[in-house]
Amino acid sequence: MPPTDVDLVVHARWIVPIEPPGVLVDHALVVDGGRIVAIVDAASADRDYRARNRVECPAHVLMPGLVNAHTHAAMNLLRGIADDVPLKPWLEAHIWPREGRFVAPEFVHDGTLLAGVEMLRGGVTCAADMYFFPDAAARAYEALGMRALVGMPVLDFPTPYAADPDAYLQKGLAARDAFKQSPRLAFALALHAPYTVGDATWAKVMMYAAQLDLPVHTHVAETRDEVEASRAASGETPVERLDRLGVTGPSLIAVHAVHVSGGDIDRLAAQRCHVVHCPTSNMKLASGIAPVAAMVERGIDVALGTDGAASNNRLDLFAEMRHASLLAKVSTGDAAALPAATVLRMATLGGATAVGMDERVGSLLPGKAADMIAVDLGGLDAMPVYDPISHLVNVAGREAVTDVWIDGRRVVAARRVMTTDEDSLAPRAALWQQRLATRID
Amino acid sequence: MPPTDVDLVVHARWIVPIEPPGVLVDHALVVDGGRIVAIVDAASADRDYRARNRVECPAHVLMPGLVNAHTHAAMNLLRGIADDVPLKPWLEAHIWPREGRFVAPEFVHDGTLLAGVEMLRGGVTCAADMYFFPDAAARAYEALGMRALVGMPVLDFPTPYAADPDAYLQKGLAARDAFKQSPRLAFALALHAPYTVGDATWAKVMMYAAQLDLPVHTHVAETRDEVEASRAASGETPVERLDRLGVTGPSLIAVHAVHVSGGDIDRLAAQRCHVVHCPTSNMKLASGIAPVAAMVERGIDVALGTDGAASNNRLDLFAEMRHASLLAKVSTGDAAALPAATVLRMATLGGATAVGMDERVGSLLPGKAADMIAVDLGGLDAMPVYDPISHLVNVAGREAVTDVWIDGRRVVAARRVMTTDEDSLAPRAALWQQRLATRID
Repeated sequence: MPPTDVDLVVHARWIVPIEPPGVLVDHALVVDGGRIVAIVDAASADRDYRARNRVECPAHVLMPGLVNAHTHAAMNLLRGIADDVPLKPWLEAHIWPREGRFVAPEFVHDGTLLAGVEMLRGGVTCAADMYFFPDAAARAYEALGMRALVGMPVLDFPTPYAADPDAYLQKGLAARDAFKQSPRLAFALALHAPYTVGDATWAKVMMYAAQLDLPVHTHVAETRDEVEASRAASGETPVERLDRLGVTGPSLIAVHAVHVSGGDIDRLAAQRCHVVHCPTSNMKLASGIAPVAAMVERGIDVALGTDGAASNNRLDLFAEMRHASLLAKVSTGDAAALPAATVLRMATLGGATAVGMDERVGSLLPGKAADMIAVDLGGLDAMPVYDPISHLVNVAGREAVTDVWIDGRRVVAARRVMTTDEDSLAPRAALWQQRLATRID
Repeated sequence: MPPTDVDLVVHARWIVPIEPPGVLVDHALVVDGGRIVAIVDAASADRDYRARNRVECPAHVLMPGLVNAHTHAAMNLLRGIADDVPLKPWLEAHIWPREGRFVAPEFVHDGTLLAGVEMLRGGVTCAADMYFFPDAAARAYEALGMRALVGMPVLDFPTPYAADPDAYLQKGLAARDAFKQSPRLAFALALHAPYTVGDATWAKVMMYAAQLDLPVHTHVAETRDEVEASRAASGETPVERLDRLGVTGPSLIAVHAVHVSGGDIDRLAAQRCHVVHCPTSNMKLASGIAPVAAMVERGIDVALGTDGAASNNRLDLFAEMRHASLLAKVSTGDAAALPAATVLRMATLGGATAVGMDERVGSLLPGKAADMIAVDLGGLDAMPVYDPISHLVNVAGREAVTDVWIDGRRVVAARRVMTTDEDSLAPRAALWQQRLATRID
């Protein structure tokens, strides 16, 4: 048989496809038309395929792109503006006043572009975003060629973006309509949290969610205060309340889930909800430690998220993997809790499942979109390499990512983003810094 | 006045001298004869000094080199060889059998060289090391031009290195004699832990410590089991026992201090002991969370350490800073616990104080040795920069370190170690990997 012509063949020292589990040594991944065609041993690849583009990754792991299942991308512009401050004054004295004054489409576009570049360079190929002016965010993701689940925000109180729940919904759905031809963008209803959205709005939103088959992305049970206030108000935990309102179900992306009871975990599991664990943010804001090992054991799909750069302060899934692993171990007293392969699956297929894209991405199965990253483990800082899966969680930093493909297109090559002019972004970030550093009194 | 001739002037966007606290913007640091002469504003530097060597760090923080106050450097060769395994089988089935079979001077030299390169590239200019064959380790540190407190190990049980406590002491002191002319090496008595060293050996070692004015470097109260076993054996906590044996005092470097009571903290504070916090290792091995904020509040000098690469798996002080900050916040429920400036001081002056070198290094005071690093905050992943001190802890990774000086000599330039042939190390690491990956049955 003559060799088959294909768009791309990537030869790698190791391939970690996630599905099936394990590591392939000295194999090659074949891509055509943006999709994965096959993974074969290196010799077969040379014999059976003629690649228009051949890439060698001699000391690298080739693996699925990482999914950042919860972020507020535009908040990159507020990275580190007020650290080491308790949550309440942090929001009330630092974040909300600046958001009230500065958040507008240009802010959201520029902040999301900066965040997208940070994520792409760090191997994140897909993000679930939640912020104001989702049309401006969508524009940035589209320009970068990045995959995203863009949140259409809904709150009960007015902001510069919208005046009331109906206005939020209307603007969000208009943004969704404007980008419905975008192959890599999907939209979710992004309700801020149980405590900021009343029963009537939840009911209305769930009607849209059902009719339009939309995921529902919300913060749940982030702090102890939130749970106590919920109990005081209605006698229910936040999860119980969402359950009563018909919000729990396979379309729910429940972010944080730090203070969840055994009963809450039962409900989340029974309803096949997705949980997004944000270990760095939960530590930094002193929110608490989510019982992730217990949730994984109950079969709940758990993904990883960075939260926004103001409460992290990196959009770095490698750090989230490491922190998820470390925190599970120290909080359970079991050094075998959340082993590296489990954490890696959370950061890829777990995230893809949470954002409703697991049939398309999250693993390197033939037929899926070629969203994948090359991680260089050849540096002296990573040697020796006994187990590449352990190294991806415990040793590699995001700086080890050299190349990133989305839909088979190389969007990062040799650590530079190819889909935007990186050099033009620094002056833009500096300009925003100048504006935002103003005293807010 | 004509300008003064000096060896080196480094101009930096920001200088964080640690002493005094705070940030200097657009200043320059002047070095001559390996020592810091002055820190002055950029214009004064150009007017008052003529530099044989001038370095521009236009988007960088210039700060003191980081001190890794506890590691087992040679264990870099065992990095990731057995992860996600509880402590007891990890030691008994994986680490000790390999150490028993392979640990020899060549192993220690090569592992330490690899670790030293990793540390230097990550901005660590000084390490407190504890391993077998300290002469081999000292040889590696000396070749790299790195500063180190080399541990002379003492145990009650035999290893391939020595047969009994007297043999350990004799060999360690011989190594110390062999390197007494090395300007950057100092030696400590490194007793493994209270539970592996009996009262008689402690007494003997403390006699040497007093006569030779040597620091005493030991693991203390790392696990709950250790404390319970100590209580069962003598009715004392490990700290109480060390106190009775006369070990507590300003020469004691107490590593871990995870499971310490209020009374233990009082003793450590009253005796002016130094504590080395190893947050990553404590999480990874599920040892627990040290009450660092409480110890700092009591005025105890707390330093940071990576532990060995087998239980971390990086020798990365940036990660330790971040983990110390995050862990203090989530464990106390206070988002203001261990602010960035405190953590940065722990990683520099705190470490220098713990290893007994604070008169020489740890801050950028004139008269101190020019041990310093340049950290690039100009990358898109770090923008914007409202507060460089927060960024050093919460944003920058070790990959942001571009240049490192020790005693005024540039040992890392543009991210490459200048004092060894980096390219020759990879094959050597690969060879060790091949040997060590052998099944141990």
